[in-house]
Amino acid sequence: MAKEIKELTSRADDYSQWYNDLVIKADLAESSAVRGCMVIKPYGYAIWEKIQAELDKMFKETGHQNAYFPLLNGSGLIVDPDAKLEEELIVRPTSETIIWNTYKGWIQSYRDLPILVNQWANVVRWEMRTRLFLRTAEFLWQEGHTAHATREEAIEEAEKMLHVYADFAENFMAVPVLRGVKSPNERFAGAIETYCIEAMMQDGKALQAGTSHFLGQNFAKAFDVTFVNKENQQDYVWATSWGVSTRLMGALIMTHSDDNGLVLPPNLAPFQVVIVPIYKNEEQLNAISEKVKEITAKLKALGITVKYDNNDTKKPGWKFAEYELKGVPVRLAMGARDLENGTVEVARRDTLTKETIAVDGVELYISKLLKEIQEI
Amino acid sequence: MAKEIKELTSRADDYSQWYNDLVIKADLAESSAVRGCMVIKPYGYAIWEKIQAELDKMFKETGHQNAYFPLLNGSGLIVDPDAKLEEELIVRPTSETIIWNTYKGWIQSYRDLPILVNQWANVVRWEMRTRLFLRTAEFLWQEGHTAHATREEAIEEAEKMLHVYADFAENFMAVPVLRGVKSPNERFAGAIETYCIEAMMQDGKALQAGTSHFLGQNFAKAFDVTFVNKENQQDYVWATSWGVSTRLMGALIMTHSDDNGLVLPPNLAPFQVVIVPIYKNEEQLNAISEKVKEITAKLKALGITVKYDNNDTKKPGWKFAEYELKGVPVRLAMGARDLENGTVEVARRDTLTKETIAVDGVELYISKLLKEIQEI
Repeated sequence: MAKEIKELTSRADDYSQWYNDLVIKADLAESSAVRGCMVIKPYGYAIWEKIQAELDKMFKETGHQNAYFPLLNGSGLIVDPDAKLEEELIVRPTSETIIWNTYKGWIQSYRDLPILVNQWANVVRWEMRTRLFLRTAEFLWQEGHTAHATREEAIEEAEKMLHVYADFAENFMAVPVLRGVKSPNERFAGAIETYCIEAMMQDGKALQAGTSHFLGQNFAKAFDVTFVNKENQQDYVWATSWGVSTRLMGALIMTHSDDNGLVLPPNLAPFQVVIVPIYKNEEQLNAISEKVKEITAKLKALGITVKYDNNDTKKPGWKFAEYELKGVPVRLAMGARDLENGTVEVARRDTLTKETIAVDGVELYISKLLKEIQEI
Repeated sequence: MAKEIKELTSRADDYSQWYNDLVIKADLAESSAVRGCMVIKPYGYAIWEKIQAELDKMFKETGHQNAYFPLLNGSGLIVDPDAKLEEELIVRPTSETIIWNTYKGWIQSYRDLPILVNQWANVVRWEMRTRLFLRTAEFLWQEGHTAHATREEAIEEAEKMLHVYADFAENFMAVPVLRGVKSPNERFAGAIETYCIEAMMQDGKALQAGTSHFLGQNFAKAFDVTFVNKENQQDYVWATSWGVSTRLMGALIMTHSDDNGLVLPPNLAPFQVVIVPIYKNEEQLNAISEKVKEITAKLKALGITVKYDNNDTKKPGWKFAEYELKGVPVRLAMGARDLENGTVEVARRDTLTKETIAVDGVELYISKLLKEIQEI
């Protein structure tokens, strides 16, 4: 079976190849038959769902609501009966245009403001060279688009969302970031100020991981979106937009992983603990499985997600390598001797250290360990 | 203010116009500048999010995982630097093609089966006449695509998902449905059998609300997806696909609503209770607001979502009409006399009945009431 173990190019040999190997071999994503587009596989998508769920919660806690605007932008839309798109159509690269065209109908007075709306969506952009998660023709993202009565309030919003992103990256994804302001030539077209978070990768490069734009009155002027202010005067509306995308998956991989594969912070792991039985016969397997059932119930009661891999077509060594590749934070291995001795082997993915501990109370030990791993 | 109250065409006068009026005036959705596409507004999207969350939970409980496949299907993809799509591209109308093209690489042996994958996505289809939620060029949906080793297992899956849909519609959305099988000429192209749920609308028409297809080996044959079975023979993989869409919003509206607007089952209400203060001066408002704070805390502790509308630019009558239009299940109104008497007025949206009850213990009364409303 050993030859089946998936090896990665080492980071020292070729950092870029290591990244590609990891994304493919850890079952995160793959290139599709459509040039520049990716298939996000179930294991990768489960991580993205955790990113989404936490960000969505943070957006709602800061007063935002979700909505959905059309994929197809531009006038003169023609779709023929075979659902082929003719050239008048633009698949959104971002949604400022259609959203400000819509907000025009929503805003008359300062009482209609602020509008604090976010959208979870797919967008498509031309890319000469694509890399899974980091730069793909289609990607998934969220785009916040807010409308305000004053310049100060819009700047405050743009800065607030930058801090939401930084807080999320650092405290939930365990990805340290630098907060900054883009130079004029790096700014989003139409922005007065572009704030960004940059994550530091292991190869020493910075990766743009999120942006928040103060758009001034530029979009309001382009789409003639005015409102009656408190002084009963017409004024143009002030705007922000802000987004993060599936590129965060790339930042996650390049911050935490090593030559054995992905290293996931517990907050983002599709399952936080994997349990592997080590047995010579079915009788041993059955006895171990009984004990595992008890341990699993105790872990689940503490909110810890667990996978028990009793697949008998793979050897333990293969499984160890597979779950290291997939970045599962904690691995438990239990053999017949452990069962006799009342012990279990606990391995940490981040430090690759192992120790044998008493099975009684192991759930509390793991709960503490997961917190420790998250905080590093 | 009375003239501001948004009136609907009555159902008896023009059912179709009543539907359109309701969708627009209850702030659920609106037509976009792009022909045939809709903007789902925050209030409408909040209902869709509740539909999504519950269905997603039910899919996961039945062993499914989410993934994401490209928007753009078809070979020879060309995107120019302005992100305009040229004619070789097809925006997915459904994803069987790209998914079975992908599954080909995932399946070698029966050990790789079943694959139980779902995708939440947007799709685009040509529609001559569009109606908000019911039939739009772009819509949001989920599409499950599963791969199995045997015919029996695939049929079981297709039937299981039909029952998941029916269970969801009836027990979560409170929308009664008929379970059926499509006649050969109504079947999805490529399906051996198409199962469906049909919801009965108030105008006596049936609305197709979800479909589940047993696809036999048709897609596996078209994309040459074979596997080695337990008997060590090559065979084609068996398939299902199943989907529900934002059309469920249309079914919801047409099952429950009346001439005053939407009627939401508590499970789907963005907020289940709205509280309206009735006051003549700020002193009264402050005293009422204090009491409302207590009531709100008690309701929230029971998991009930509450909005307190103390907006002083709108009169109570306007607010009553607005929340009836939006289908909020329970409305509380509290005036200065209620405060003196220790009472509060409770109005049910579904029956339009009102009663005045003691404010002490109102949270338990409302908790019971919401259950009762959900079950009708």
